[in-house]
Amino acid sequence: MLFMNDEFYMQLAIDEAWEYQLLTYPNPPVGAVVVCDGKIVAIEAHRKAGTSHAEVLALVRAYEALSGETVSIDRYDAHAAHAFLRGLPAGFFAACTIYVTLEPCAHEGKTPSCASLLFELNLERVVVAHPDPIAGHGGGANRLGNVTMGVLEAQAHDLITPFLIWQERAFVVFKLAQTLNGRIGGGYLSSQESLEHVHRIRSVVDRLIIGGGTVRTDRPTLDSRYDPEGRAPDVTIFSGQTEWDHTIPLFDVEGRDVQISDTLACLDTPSLILVEGGDGMLGALGDRIDWMLTYLTPKLSPNEITYNTTTTLRFLHTQRIGVDLMIWSQNLGD
Amino acid sequence: MLFMNDEFYMQLAIDEAWEYQLLTYPNPPVGAVVVCDGKIVAIEAHRKAGTSHAEVLALVRAYEALSGETVSIDRYDAHAAHAFLRGLPAGFFAACTIYVTLEPCAHEGKTPSCASLLFELNLERVVVAHPDPIAGHGGGANRLGNVTMGVLEAQAHDLITPFLIWQERAFVVFKLAQTLNGRIGGGYLSSQESLEHVHRIRSVVDRLIIGGGTVRTDRPTLDSRYDPEGRAPDVTIFSGQTEWDHTIPLFDVEGRDVQISDTLACLDTPSLILVEGGDGMLGALGDRIDWMLTYLTPKLSPNEITYNTTTTLRFLHTQRIGVDLMIWSQNLGD
Repeated sequence: MLFMNDEFYMQLAIDEAWEYQLLTYPNPPVGAVVVCDGKIVAIEAHRKAGTSHAEVLALVRAYEALSGETVSIDRYDAHAAHAFLRGLPAGFFAACTIYVTLEPCAHEGKTPSCASLLFELNLERVVVAHPDPIAGHGGGANRLGNVTMGVLEAQAHDLITPFLIWQERAFVVFKLAQTLNGRIGGGYLSSQESLEHVHRIRSVVDRLIIGGGTVRTDRPTLDSRYDPEGRAPDVTIFSGQTEWDHTIPLFDVEGRDVQISDTLACLDTPSLILVEGGDGMLGALGDRIDWMLTYLTPKLSPNEITYNTTTTLRFLHTQRIGVDLMIWSQNLGD
Repeated sequence: MLFMNDEFYMQLAIDEAWEYQLLTYPNPPVGAVVVCDGKIVAIEAHRKAGTSHAEVLALVRAYEALSGETVSIDRYDAHAAHAFLRGLPAGFFAACTIYVTLEPCAHEGKTPSCASLLFELNLERVVVAHPDPIAGHGGGANRLGNVTMGVLEAQAHDLITPFLIWQERAFVVFKLAQTLNGRIGGGYLSSQESLEHVHRIRSVVDRLIIGGGTVRTDRPTLDSRYDPEGRAPDVTIFSGQTEWDHTIPLFDVEGRDVQISDTLACLDTPSLILVEGGDGMLGALGDRIDWMLTYLTPKLSPNEITYNTTTTLRFLHTQRIGVDLMIWSQNLGD
């Protein structure tokens, strides 16, 4: 067991970032931990594109822990948070190390550059897991003095794999909700927390692909009603059937584009795609599935579903979500 | 996310203790974390009955971290480790807090009393998750000055549930190795690390119960060959069949007692029982199963096995084991 070293703190940052996997789309998920005089004072993650980066949220939280005061600014407003941190007394974080899963951005985009901020704040050390992979965006670490690069880089690479792929082509996540023994379907199996999580993901994806069989059988709505700020995703029904019963609720969601297609041409466009379905969709997509997102419900259920799919996965990350387990895995193919 | 508080450190201690769940039989699994001047300097757990307790291992490790020296004594020898710690300069751990998942023992058994040791070492604080549940063994905390009780007590209670039960009656763990989609069997599905873990558990249990159908089909050996210090468990074949093919390897393991029974009378004796089998054994045992231990292999496989079992579980703890996931869950019944 590792403890009190760079890997230990970076693992905490990585785990925190996984909480927002996909939800930061089109940004990468990033986590940050601040350790001052050997004590953990902040564990934060980037939550949503257009809001403060992980480093900024962690430093605001660190300020609160060190000062004992609660900050009244909107910390998710990057400009306000940067301005607040820049206004602190020089050397405030002199005894602090920040662990960041991705190289602080040198790029001034929707938010000010985190590399510039860290340069000004002059922390004791900046520890980075993975270099900025975007051409022209890197070099943030070069500006900083005491930088350690590459701590848990492989784990941080797993974390940002969707981000790396969705800039080139569609990143395809297959969602599967099942009991521990593999029973799919049968009503609302998952915990409320799992449903809310799916709806948060539906809110950010470019498109949801669903199998025609599932549409006929389940007559789903496929909206994001459990995410209070969510929007219903556009839907592609993967089917050769051209005529559909338009009383199926998914056709009646405002502002939604519904397409019916028996090709997967939509996967050629750089985007984030969620797929929901069963064994048929698994087989139809095959190696075009990048990751599986499995919600495992703590039940054993009578199971008469026959799987035809054979594939090898790699477990990437597991976390509790309500009474369920959420398992992220990479599809390695058969 | 919690950090830098008692719950954070105790969670680390609890997670570490889970690494040795069942393996400490007949002792409870116990974890300990030492934090000095706000820095984590040790994370340890009790590993095996008759060897040093978690507190002792953690304090030896803390000494090493604080002094920069490596201790040459056999730290798993409780008498040697206690003597070493008692010989340290007074006040050596004065700036340290120890987090222990179970109240330090007041009882002088195979190992000296940890409560006495902690009293002598006079740490800044002792934080305990769960009181000693054994009549006559408690009261260890009373002797200590600055004690905080009950931090994450519910999680620590889950951790020692097997220990609480196996003193009253048989504690029954049903082992299930399967693919992510619930395929059981089909050869050695699990990772080497999972196989080794099963063999370490087989080495400590009082008896392994296996279904007659599995014996006929798989012709297993059911030994502990992947645990270098292991012993093969005694076996009960749960079956009404009295005549057996004694060329099946399990009958040829030295020093093993094999019984054949169509009752579960052996469950009335206080003991630790491992069950291996499939849906038939699950149904036969039903609510007599206390916990499930599932090794989840990262594959989807064609699955024609029909489950008849219906039960609700509660996920207790999950960890990676090689490429697999190991899931501990409580059987709540249907």
